[in-house]
Amino acid sequence: MTYALWYWSEIPGRGEFVRLALEAGRIPYEDKALARDDVALMRDRGGRRPEPFAPPYLVAGDLVIAQVAAILLYLGESHGLAPADPRGRLLAHQIQLTIADCVTEAHDTHHPVAMGAYYEDQIAEAARRADDFRTERLPKFLGWFERMLARSDGPWLLGADWSYADLSLFQLLDGLRFAFPLRMERLAGGHPRLTALHAAVAALPVLQPYFKSGRRQPYGDGIFRHYPELDAA
Amino acid sequence: MTYALWYWSEIPGRGEFVRLALEAGRIPYEDKALARDDVALMRDRGGRRPEPFAPPYLVAGDLVIAQVAAILLYLGESHGLAPADPRGRLLAHQIQLTIADCVTEAHDTHHPVAMGAYYEDQIAEAARRADDFRTERLPKFLGWFERMLARSDGPWLLGADWSYADLSLFQLLDGLRFAFPLRMERLAGGHPRLTALHAAVAALPVLQPYFKSGRRQPYGDGIFRHYPELDAA
Repeated sequence: MTYALWYWSEIPGRGEFVRLALEAGRIPYEDKALARDDVALMRDRGGRRPEPFAPPYLVAGDLVIAQVAAILLYLGESHGLAPADPRGRLLAHQIQLTIADCVTEAHDTHHPVAMGAYYEDQIAEAARRADDFRTERLPKFLGWFERMLARSDGPWLLGADWSYADLSLFQLLDGLRFAFPLRMERLAGGHPRLTALHAAVAALPVLQPYFKSGRRQPYGDGIFRHYPELDAA
Repeated sequence: MTYALWYWSEIPGRGEFVRLALEAGRIPYEDKALARDDVALMRDRGGRRPEPFAPPYLVAGDLVIAQVAAILLYLGESHGLAPADPRGRLLAHQIQLTIADCVTEAHDTHHPVAMGAYYEDQIAEAARRADDFRTERLPKFLGWFERMLARSDGPWLLGADWSYADLSLFQLLDGLRFAFPLRMERLAGGHPRLTALHAAVAALPVLQPYFKSGRRQPYGDGIFRHYPELDAA
């Protein structure tokens, strides 16, 4: 059975967290975003049972799974992308859910008050939310991820082997570096393990074919966006 | 083994989703919020390994689980509070994650730009965010939950038996009714299955001792808040 991954075209967004797990796990899948047909995506989504609330969703035979953390829980269990023991399995999931929370907050920096409106229509509100994110929330998230790595038996979040949580933490850090380069550079010194994890995932041999394929989308106007006025050291 | 549930005192908040599952499952637990000592909570949280990013968290022997959806996944599997088959198990989790997203968005209506500041310091931004939530996001969420119920073999979300997802949907609806009474009343007619589910959970015999115990906290200044200026039919 070949999986189908449905997500918006043109942006990495939340779909990229699933894509990295599929790629790193050498799991065959059809990437529906490559067709660049978001109308087909919306039509497909409406016809699925259970109907996904939003993309991304993974179709596996007659199984339809939405929500990134649920997809990764499933892939982790089915393809050994996370520890199999209850403790490690739950910790990987817990870290993933915290990554998801941070992704939502990163998104809300440029869309703090009207999800369906343009950034340009909420610039003043975005400035306040981005300031709060950079100074309060981001250090809190990064500090927790750094401590998770420090307390692991290492070098990865869950021990000797990488899991989907490591891939997702890489993607989160990568997106944050794109969106808030000045702030992330300033915070880098205090979070050496995050810097090392980002480099380690970027260098994973199993991911090199994907990184070199041209299929990895630029961040563009997706969840992670770079507006210079929302960044500051 | 008796579980310990750690959460802020004085508000139901995210802890209530876990509390309802424990109560409905007749699972013995110590509710640490009853001690009304949030300093003890912060001290306990900092000393736990793995360290929870935020309350609520459940301590089960030497297992520490944070993130509501992860806690409920665990309780669901351990105590039969969700279907055991892969499809039902994943669908319950997926619904729970969507409920969690809606909870976060409901929270952000009164704290759209500065999580650590007072509502009074972000009233104008809150008005915009609440308007967007009431008119765009809330109908989208409620419509999806209504369809999940319509397409179930019924009467519950996952079929003939209630699961933790039903309890959580009840709590979400209950909190939304408190925060946005005018809007929820207006939307009620178009979502008869949600109205019925709320009533069915409220009447579950197994929950009556808890509802009558006085231990269920009023919403107060928690995640679900009622500011009349943020509501409208």
